Amino acid sequence: MTNPRADRVKAVRALTGRSARRRSGTFLVEGPQAVREAVAPGGPRVHDLYLTADAAARYPEIVAAARETGVRLRTGTVEVLDAMSPDAQGVVAVVDQTHGDLADVLAAGPRLVAVLAHVRDPGNAGAVLRAADAAGADAVVVSAASVDVHNPKVVRSTAGSLFHLPVVTGPELADVVTALRAAGLAVLAADGSGTHDLDDLLDVAGAAPAGVPDLAAPTAWVFGNEAWGLRDEDVTLADAVVRVPLRGRAESLNLATAATVCLYASGRAQRGR
Amino acid sequence: MTNPRADRVKAVRALTGRSARRRSGTFLVEGPQAVREAVAPGGPRVHDLYLTADAAARYPEIVAAARETGVRLRTGTVEVLDAMSPDAQGVVAVVDQTHGDLADVLAAGPRLVAVLAHVRDPGNAGAVLRAADAAGADAVVVSAASVDVHNPKVVRSTAGSLFHLPVVTGPELADVVTALRAAGLAVLAADGSGTHDLDDLLDVAGAAPAGVPDLAAPTAWVFGNEAWGLRDEDVTLADAVVRVPLRGRAESLNLATAATVCLYASGRAQRGR
Repeated sequence: MTNPRADRVKAVRALTGRSARRRSGTFLVEGPQAVREAVAPGGPRVHDLYLTADAAARYPEIVAAARETGVRLRTGTVEVLDAMSPDAQGVVAVVDQTHGDLADVLAAGPRLVAVLAHVRDPGNAGAVLRAADAAGADAVVVSAASVDVHNPKVVRSTAGSLFHLPVVTGPELADVVTALRAAGLAVLAADGSGTHDLDDLLDVAGAAPAGVPDLAAPTAWVFGNEAWGLRDEDVTLADAVVRVPLRGRAESLNLATAATVCLYASGRAQRGR
Repeated sequence: MTNPRADRVKAVRALTGRSARRRSGTFLVEGPQAVREAVAPGGPRVHDLYLTADAAARYPEIVAAARETGVRLRTGTVEVLDAMSPDAQGVVAVVDQTHGDLADVLAAGPRLVAVLAHVRDPGNAGAVLRAADAAGADAVVVSAASVDVHNPKVVRSTAGSLFHLPVVTGPELADVVTALRAAGLAVLAADGSGTHDLDDLLDVAGAAPAGVPDLAAPTAWVFGNEAWGLRDEDVTLADAVVRVPLRGRAESLNLATAATVCLYASGRAQRGR
């Protein structure tokens, strides 16, 4: 492929927009790291894979994996790949969207779930997804009125984690909380107004007194919008509200870092269970 | 002020660039939250404060603080403020850069210091600064060849924390490490190759056996570049190399979230000391 203005190139580029993603049910995976994970066995259905000749030589494992799984591979000029995505280092894939199913997630007996409520910022959403994966979460739920997890900025921020654990999208927060609780998870809202300090909960994890959330038990964390946090009505849905300790003069953490501290606290409390 | 093309407006706008900041020794503070902290007693020297009439009415506490400290306040039209900064919600200040002094920091007997080595991404740098503040760090050191902490994107990401703790900029990493160690701090490099697992260190904090870093003791953390981490020669400068546990399939965390987990572990281990 040599024409950066070809229809096929434009169709790939259009996947940066939500409407083209919705129409096609596919999304854009950019860059060698993410594409490597997309073409790995057990990954999503890959429609098309585009590389520059240079990239094909530099990443033989991507070419080999594509051949093995029968993925169509096309080489294009640097101009063609740049027109598809300026951030892809010559490696782009068009991949089927996958949507985790909440019932399936709950049937598997999850011990740690992250719920994003009304999160709009792609970088924060992707970073939370990546942190949830790293902390050992079993699934991530992204509630209605949140950013599209197949937005290229989210995909990039997840650094491959989008392919690592089920991501359930679209349900109303109240319905998610009801289902999580019915499945035996304690639902904790992360909020600066929290009555429980996260460090205090870590101190008693595994032996928490009545009325105190036990981080060693199956837990779902609910995180709010990057600018205004959780709405009052969202906070009241939770079994308990937990604040991350603030020791200096900062008034808060950003969403991704606050969520990471909470998820890592749970991961630590659940070690070996 | 009514002319968005006036020289004064252009001069404020120019502070988004590093050369204008270097020439003037000032920087741009945008938005009500950050400006509120800048004009508070004990803050940096504020040269000029610009508000729309609307913003002046909406944030009377900023106007009052400016009057109290003798800061020149100018009102401008929405067009003027937008030309100064499109992200400032009608509130902009031009403020003296302050640079923490490493000798002063060390003379105060710090227990927790964050060191950023060759960090280039403004959002990550600002988020680490904010997390260091929240975790109770006494100072942040940003080594040579890193992003300018007075870059507007860094300032915005710190959410005011730039004004909360000393930020030392510019020294070579090797010199920083030598000085920190001489002041009695253990120097820990955060790196995926680490021989010590952060959770294991938390388990023994306060009673670590010989050869194992004690997170309850005075500690400096060294964090590397957002894309390629720490260079081998940087890692070898440290007393020990510590990895953040990765429980799922993620290969790493992003810089800001990894740094937050490390700093919060230290904050937790040092509670009540």
